Order: sequence, then C-alpha cells, then structure tokens
Amino acid sequence: MKVRVFVTLKPSVFDPQGHTIVEALHTLGYRDVQDVRQGKYFELEIDAGSPDAARARADEIARTLLANPVIEGYRLEVAGAAAGVAP
Amino acid sequence: MKVRVFVTLKPSVFDPQGHTIVEALHTLGYRDVQDVRQGKYFELEIDAGSPDAARARADEIARTLLANPVIEGYRLEVAGAAAGVAP
Repeated sequence: MKVRVFVTLKPSVFDPQGHTIVEALHTLGYRDVQDVRQGKYFELEIDAGSPDAARARADEIARTLLANPVIEGYRLEVAGAAAGVAP
Repeated sequence: MKVRVFVTLKPSVFDPQGHTIVEALHTLGYRDVQDVRQGKYFELEIDAGSPDAARARADEIARTLLANPVIEGYRLEVAGAAAGVAP
C-alpha cells in the first residue's frame, strides 16, 4: 500500500532554502511568486492489510525517522484515502 | 494561490537516499516497508488570477528551476483543483 509523507518546517521556523528560491525566482523575472516553502517528500510502499494499518505504520515511521518533531510537521496521504495532518 | 510541487526521481533512476531509508527502517524493525522513494516538496504562493494561471506559472517554474527534467519528474497540485502529472 502506498503512503505519501510530506515533511515541512513548522510555520514559525525560518526556511532559508525557500527564501533563496524566492530570491532566485524574482531574479529570473517570476515576481508573482510571493513565498516558497521547501520540504521533503517520501513515498513508502508498506505491506499492510488495510489503509488504516498502513497509515498507522507510516505515522510511526514519520514521527520517529523522517521528521524532526521539534522543527518539522508532517502530513500523510494513503493512496485512495483522505489526508491526515500532524501538528 | 497555493501550488504544491512534488519532484521525484524518474522510476528508472536509482534512488540511493530512498534505498538507505529502507535499510534503516529494516534495521529498526519496520520490515513491512518494501520500498521508499525520496523526493522534494515545494509550496509556492503565487499571485495569479485563476487556478489555471497559477498552474501554468508553477509548471514553468518547476520545469526550469525546481526539477532536473533529465532525471526527475514532477507533479503539481493547485489548492482546491485536480492534480496534474508531468512525465
């Protein structure tokens, strides 16, 4: 079962990569881009019996390995199921 | 208008980061994880008049700056609109 994990810096944390991308876009003439936040994206293929089981497993993995909960939040999407958000 | 851009390596390209994550997960006991692909994730805030205009702008930006079209593909999602895929 495929689960997508999106890891992004918390809104209160400064994102220097995103800031650099905005500046590069403005230099290239894309002045209509107001803000960019960069994050990480993972596609997990999990052997689980149900979407709920896959989500629970991915949540545990995201919390312990993929995201740094002090400065990052994450969001999960199980293929064919609704999205879930972690603070 | 918010546009999300997902950049991933093409399926034919080996993903050493994803491979390392799978090995780490197996070492930690998560043996039900069969595969991991790592990618990049961007949230763009674009000043556009319509979702279609925002998507066109983000597509241009993803193609020219965010993804390397030789080895990477990307996917766009405009907040509140359907998903689009680039090869």
